[in-house]
Amino acid sequence: MTADKTAKDIRNMRIRGALDIAIAAARAMRKELDGKSTAAVISNLKKSGKTLKAARPTAVSLPNAVDYVLYLAEKNKKLDAGEFTRTTSKDIQKFIDDQERALERIAEIGANLIDSNDTILTHCNSDTVVALFERARKEGKKFKVICTETRPRFQGHLTARALAKAKIPTTLVVDSAARLMMKEFKVDKVIVGGDTVLANGDLINKIGTSQIAVAARDLDIDFIAAVESIKFSPRSIEGEMAKIEYRDTKEVIKPGKIRGIKVLNPAFDITPAEMIDMLITEEGIIPPQGAYHLLREKFGWELSSF
Amino acid sequence: MTADKTAKDIRNMRIRGALDIAIAAARAMRKELDGKSTAAVISNLKKSGKTLKAARPTAVSLPNAVDYVLYLAEKNKKLDAGEFTRTTSKDIQKFIDDQERALERIAEIGANLIDSNDTILTHCNSDTVVALFERARKEGKKFKVICTETRPRFQGHLTARALAKAKIPTTLVVDSAARLMMKEFKVDKVIVGGDTVLANGDLINKIGTSQIAVAARDLDIDFIAAVESIKFSPRSIEGEMAKIEYRDTKEVIKPGKIRGIKVLNPAFDITPAEMIDMLITEEGIIPPQGAYHLLREKFGWELSSF
Amino acid sequence: MTADKTAKDIRNMRIRGALDIAIAAARAMRKELDGKSTAAVISNLKKSGKTLKAARPTAVSLPNAVDYVLYLAEKNKKLDAGEFTRTTSKDIQKFIDDQERALERIAEIGANLIDSNDTILTHCNSDTVVALFERARKEGKKFKVICTETRPRFQGHLTARALAKAKIPTTLVVDSAARLMMKEFKVDKVIVGGDTVLANGDLINKIGTSQIAVAARDLDIDFIAAVESIKFSPRSIEGEMAKIEYRDTKEVIKPGKIRGIKVLNPAFDITPAEMIDMLITEEGIIPPQGAYHLLREKFGWELSSF
Amino acid sequence: MTADKTAKDIRNMRIRGALDIAIAAARAMRKELDGKSTAAVISNLKKSGKTLKAARPTAVSLPNAVDYVLYLAEKNKKLDAGEFTRTTSKDIQKFIDDQERALERIAEIGANLIDSNDTILTHCNSDTVVALFERARKEGKKFKVICTETRPRFQGHLTARALAKAKIPTTLVVDSAARLMMKEFKVDKVIVGGDTVLANGDLINKIGTSQIAVAARDLDIDFIAAVESIKFSPRSIEGEMAKIEYRDTKEVIKPGKIRGIKVLNPAFDITPAEMIDMLITEEGIIPPQGAYHLLREKFGWELSSF
Amino acid sequence: MTADKTAKDIRNMRIRGALDIAIAAARAMRKELDGKSTAAVISNLKKSGKTLKAARPTAVSLPNAVDYVLYLAEKNKKLDAGEFTRTTSKDIQKFIDDQERALERIAEIGANLIDSNDTILTHCNSDTVVALFERARKEGKKFKVICTETRPRFQGHLTARALAKAKIPTTLVVDSAARLMMKEFKVDKVIVGGDTVLANGDLINKIGTSQIAVAARDLDIDFIAAVESIKFSPRSIEGEMAKIEYRDTKEVIKPGKIRGIKVLNPAFDITPAEMIDMLITEEGIIPPQGAYHLLREKFGWELSSF
Amino acid sequence: MTADKTAKDIRNMRIRGALDIAIAAARAMRKELDGKSTAAVISNLKKSGKTLKAARPTAVSLPNAVDYVLYLAEKNKKLDAGEFTRTTSKDIQKFIDDQERALERIAEIGANLIDSNDTILTHCNSDTVVALFERARKEGKKFKVICTETRPRFQGHLTARALAKAKIPTTLVVDSAARLMMKEFKVDKVIVGGDTVLANGDLINKIGTSQIAVAARDLDIDFIAAVESIKFSPRSIEGEMAKIEYRDTKEVIKPGKIRGIKVLNPAFDITPAEMIDMLITEEGIIPPQGAYHLLREKFGWELSSF
Repeated sequence: MTADKTAKDIRNMRIRGALDIAIAAARAMRKELDGKSTAAVISNLKKSGKTLKAARPTAVSLPNAVDYVLYLAEKNKKLDAGEFTRTTSKDIQKFIDDQERALERIAEIGANLIDSNDTILTHCNSDTVVALFERARKEGKKFKVICTETRPRFQGHLTARALAKAKIPTTLVVDSAARLMMKEFKVDKVIVGGDTVLANGDLINKIGTSQIAVAARDLDIDFIAAVESIKFSPRSIEGEMAKIEYRDTKEVIKPGKIRGIKVLNPAFDITPAEMIDMLITEEGIIPPQGAYHLLREKFGWELSSF
Repeated sequence: MTADKTAKDIRNMRIRGALDIAIAAARAMRKELDGKSTAAVISNLKKSGKTLKAARPTAVSLPNAVDYVLYLAEKNKKLDAGEFTRTTSKDIQKFIDDQERALERIAEIGANLIDSNDTILTHCNSDTVVALFERARKEGKKFKVICTETRPRFQGHLTARALAKAKIPTTLVVDSAARLMMKEFKVDKVIVGGDTVLANGDLINKIGTSQIAVAARDLDIDFIAAVESIKFSPRSIEGEMAKIEYRDTKEVIKPGKIRGIKVLNPAFDITPAEMIDMLITEEGIIPPQGAYHLLREKFGWELSSF
Repeated sequence: MTADKTAKDIRNMRIRGALDIAIAAARAMRKELDGKSTAAVISNLKKSGKTLKAARPTAVSLPNAVDYVLYLAEKNKKLDAGEFTRTTSKDIQKFIDDQERALERIAEIGANLIDSNDTILTHCNSDTVVALFERARKEGKKFKVICTETRPRFQGHLTARALAKAKIPTTLVVDSAARLMMKEFKVDKVIVGGDTVLANGDLINKIGTSQIAVAARDLDIDFIAAVESIKFSPRSIEGEMAKIEYRDTKEVIKPGKIRGIKVLNPAFDITPAEMIDMLITEEGIIPPQGAYHLLREKFGWELSSF
Repeated sequence: MTADKTAKDIRNMRIRGALDIAIAAARAMRKELDGKSTAAVISNLKKSGKTLKAARPTAVSLPNAVDYVLYLAEKNKKLDAGEFTRTTSKDIQKFIDDQERALERIAEIGANLIDSNDTILTHCNSDTVVALFERARKEGKKFKVICTETRPRFQGHLTARALAKAKIPTTLVVDSAARLMMKEFKVDKVIVGGDTVLANGDLINKIGTSQIAVAARDLDIDFIAAVESIKFSPRSIEGEMAKIEYRDTKEVIKPGKIRGIKVLNPAFDITPAEMIDMLITEEGIIPPQGAYHLLREKFGWELSSF
Repeated sequence: MTADKTAKDIRNMRIRGALDIAIAAARAMRKELDGKSTAAVISNLKKSGKTLKAARPTAVSLPNAVDYVLYLAEKNKKLDAGEFTRTTSKDIQKFIDDQERALERIAEIGANLIDSNDTILTHCNSDTVVALFERARKEGKKFKVICTETRPRFQGHLTARALAKAKIPTTLVVDSAARLMMKEFKVDKVIVGGDTVLANGDLINKIGTSQIAVAARDLDIDFIAAVESIKFSPRSIEGEMAKIEYRDTKEVIKPGKIRGIKVLNPAFDITPAEMIDMLITEEGIIPPQGAYHLLREKFGWELSSF
Repeated sequence: MTADKTAKDIRNMRIRGALDIAIAAARAMRKELDGKSTAAVISNLKKSGKTLKAARPTAVSLPNAVDYVLYLAEKNKKLDAGEFTRTTSKDIQKFIDDQERALERIAEIGANLIDSNDTILTHCNSDTVVALFERARKEGKKFKVICTETRPRFQGHLTARALAKAKIPTTLVVDSAARLMMKEFKVDKVIVGGDTVLANGDLINKIGTSQIAVAARDLDIDFIAAVESIKFSPRSIEGEMAKIEYRDTKEVIKPGKIRGIKVLNPAFDITPAEMIDMLITEEGIIPPQGAYHLLREKFGWELSSF
């Protein structure tokens, strides 16, 4: 069945990336819009939703998408089966379209923030941030980007490669050089992506992000995160804050290379809201403290179960 | 001749490390204590000093050692040739002995700062800091050390190996994880070594140090540097502040791996005095702002040429 | 009459605590839902509201409850007398139910914020905070609480007693020891209650709270306040900020014990929004700057008179 | 035609001030409510709007007013021509009335923030802030105001004159003395006006404002800006941040007085949201981070074109 | 024997206070200046010194005084027994005289820092600070003092009583009110005494001091400590930092009053150097970072054993 | 008599500038080296010193110079009259020579701090700072200077003119624009002169300096003051801190131009040590906290009267 297949693909990381996961989940559920009665369809949707959510418990966009579809179903539940299916299908499609436009919309807004002659530092590899840089470049803005290599998996190389392809002057440095670069090359802005935004505006992102943010704040350099609203965590309103994921240590050092030591490989860290100057979302630029507002506006439905 | 040979060894990095360079230079000059008259010996020493200084212009301990020997010679210049040589030789030997004891003395003082149950973070690989940890361990203190891998050359691996050998519980992480480690594992102190201390208390050390310092200050974790006084820069009193050295970029990424980008490999950064809680020197614990005082006390001779 | 009786009980402190006052006021007004015409009932309600509000001018939950009931009446004013009474009565009951669930809801959300092994500091005695700790304990979390004695009335003893009863490891210290405790015992979070939240996110709470908050910020320890939304002050949107209440000085020192001095006994202080990491309300976790948003959402009615 | 005439007056600065411009634009558009069909009237309004907007591209209240009128028209577009004109005219009038009441409303709220014995510092000349002071004075509050002269055009003289007329004790100082005044005379609050508020809460105001704000934050003095919501910039939600306007340098120094130098005369600077304690708007007191919320509530229509 | 008797008195707290302890120890040792040979006297002194030091291991002025006397003996050791005794006795007397003048000298210097109309906050009870206030009062300065009660032992009552006697307007508040007092009454300075000053400028003083210091820094109020140089810790140069002493918990709460809780009663806390604006010593006003300098100048002798 | 004449010239501001005043005073006293006995000459010198000191009580370099000469006399007092005069005369001349070289020496050291491509902001008009810029320019460094006009007396115009003459690219702005310039033009350093340095490192300088310093700290821009050691205040060691001088208000606004207001014209403000990155003195670069050390080294004599 579709939901099962999609869940499997998500579990196996064949479907990756917050937006792609959200879209795939919504699509899978739209295909489950089938049943003798409205009640039966809704029950079906709930089962699929459960399956999907279990596929990757840490990806905030997955339950967000599932819960939103269930909310749409709930809204339409007084319609008869045929009408229910048609309306809900259309509603889901709109949600999917919104997600598909989000990245482009953020790129558009974010590009407005870039001035010619800017020097911008980024960390890790975010499709959204790369799209934003490409858009600014296409608009004719001349700016430079410094990217960190992003140990342990060197995702900064992906960023550097993409920017070089887009003819954006790009400098690669080790992660430790971020603060020196900010000082020596008078970095104007730091722009990063994000994995999750919490209700109080804290940002979960690739390990090292908070270290760069604290240095940026000390030097009064704007620290900006570009994050689709599907990555905002409604659960954090209820106090379910982020747990840091630790990944396989062999990404850091060949096992056994040094005997008698412990190795830790945390995947993310938390950048406190007060270090973030603004969030770029497809709903526009918001202060990190506006996260609660956005969550309420967009996922109010989800929270009605409070 | 000795000075030439030593200069060559310093240039070729066969003699490395601030203390070893200072001692080698002083020894080389002591061997040049030869000549018909005191004036001739002094002239000889000056020539040797010039040769030695030129061998590695960026190592602050080298001119410090040379200038100190010249100061000793100046002090004794009214003695006749025989007496001059004997006295100056003894004076130089005392200087050498002092340097040799400095590391041990810092280890002794620094070990006093470590409490059982401490979790300490260090960056890069400093012999002085490793000695300090070993000493504390020998004194029976039970503490843990977190070391960063220290890209691009992974010197943190050296630290981890040394500590493992000393039976000190050691955890290795990527450089980007320093701030998260401080939060999650409630780091008590950061202890690093140093390459140079400036007159206003700023610290030049391995790239990444200032980034860790700014994070430590934000979290109110003591940031401590263990630095022999031979690394304090008298020239900085005259405004000759540090220039950052950029090393070969192939340490960062294989040349040509990503086309169309620039790579930068800065070796050091500058940690401002206000981020440093104390300096451990062989003269005891001083606030970074005490650097001027120490320079005046120890290298007043050098500054008499002001 | 009921409103008079309730007002008297509030005045005499027989009814105390923000929530209890709000509920009592709403109940009293519901009992006044009587009259020949809708207009007469409303007029009656207004009179009762005035009486109630006068009973304790400084308790923000009292005017909040009264104004909300009047708003409900206003909303229903086009109904005929019978229908008006039935509908308004039901509406008031819902408001009362919401208040009754608020404490429990905050405990539920707040307990999510507590991790096993946490050390948490609290100040004074807040039923909401105690409930939150009890809930976390019941969920099996193992954490420690440090409570200040809270001079002059030692309300911290009440907290300590309640926590001891709930089998939560509890340490009692003098108020002055808060910062040292945070350092020495590596406090993870400070959680306090609150008397009033202003439109700009400032928190009015027991004297000493702001002193603890400034120390927590310096040490980068999360400072969290658990406050029911009935304590948010709509009047502060109009610029009516808090005045500090000074209580009887004999709580501080026996009168005449020291001659020739003045004694001051302020009951509250103001913790600025920027020192508060989050507010736990029954509507979820919000950044303090979200207070304006919450006020608008919940008490928009009250503000329509703007 | 009316819109042309108004546009000209705005261009020639005969109509000045954010509120006056907004009101004039709305009035001009109301007069254009003419045409055979609803579609024709709307088309007419759009043309007028374009003309008006072009008159002063940097004044945020102008496009805000025009876009709001167009939104009202859009809302009514299903009505027939006669009904459309009547309804839209009434709607526009309400908008005008709201603007006219805004200043008075802010004065009322702001006066609540002033306590007797306050010493308040202000910068430049804001009608809103002067009205606020006058109102507080009329309410019998006794406070002092320190005003900066506000180079280069000495608008502080206007403020001083107005306050002297209102019998408010007023002290005039050079701009450079602001911080010393805050220390020596223990200033309680800084209250300034504003030209534009951005989506992230940053404030654009007369050059020197941010310098005073940073000093106020350092001394923990409340920094408050009184700004009508018509000055909030919806475009900033899309990333169109402020560009600083540079004015004629002869305001600074007689041309040619010093040869061989460059003179710059920036009109505004940007005060970051984190330095602002609250904004006083006609909608009440909001934290600067509430700007996004206010923009969404008030100008949501404008943003629907996103 | 004298040293034994004095040691006993120190142990039993019959001799208390840093200065009194130092003077008593020096006097006791002066009385031991007896023996057949210089070597015998010195040996005698060393034994006495050991006895004295053991009497109260945590009082920094005690080893300081003993070590200073031993240093004087060492300096004179080449003299014959008679000459040795005479000279050393005179030297010791000078040290005693210096200590006796120190308090008065600090009062004189500190009084210069007080301006008429100042409002000054103090914590706990320091003879030095009281003397300083009395001196300023005698010089005709009109200022107010706010003193905290200083739980658990209410030593603030002693301060309040002394100040009232000196006709200095004095206000007593609970410890928790310190920050509010600073804000509401616009405190100009905080002046406290000190138990120990460390080489890096950190101050050990009565529990609560650091909490007041962090609040003072936040409000940019000068934080000043008046400390005799005999309280500076030479051992801290070698890394022997302060350990916090925990006192009997019955000072905090009657044992058994609340069952099942733990009580902690820390006597001191540590105020970091960066929160201290200046130290008043009998050698004049120094920045806290000057502590190392002072230690070197005054106790250089002690450190020669390094 | 010479001292009288010099005192008059100082009083009438014919002799101005800290260095010129110090030199003139020393010269005047050297000419008074006359008398029958050493005692008579010293008595004479003391009288002259008193006369000179009274000429301008607020200029710190004046008592510094007088007291230093008296100290030299004291040192030589055991010599007979002839020898006393010769020796003291030579000593005074050396002091004069040192002062004369100080400015040049600071220019030399300060020029080392300037890098090509630097943008430097300065405030007011300091001969020392101008000399420093000229020196750097002569050394071939290419840098830009932004100078504030420095209300009320526009001394910034003098700076701009001097720099233009020295072919240094110079931009003039109003004082209020300092922070914006730092942001927009990425200022690298702020370099100002100074009137007085206090024992705790605080700097007294032209009104507006502290406002620029607080902005520079916020933006992490180095704030540097170039100050001859003759301007360091030994009296501040004894607690005689700076009083702010208020000048004629007609410098600010034509008297009577605005009726009913008060005008204040403070000449100086105080920049706290923690906002200053370094002081450039003729003794080299020192951290501001090194001021006490410098005072002790250079003016130890003066303090012996303690």
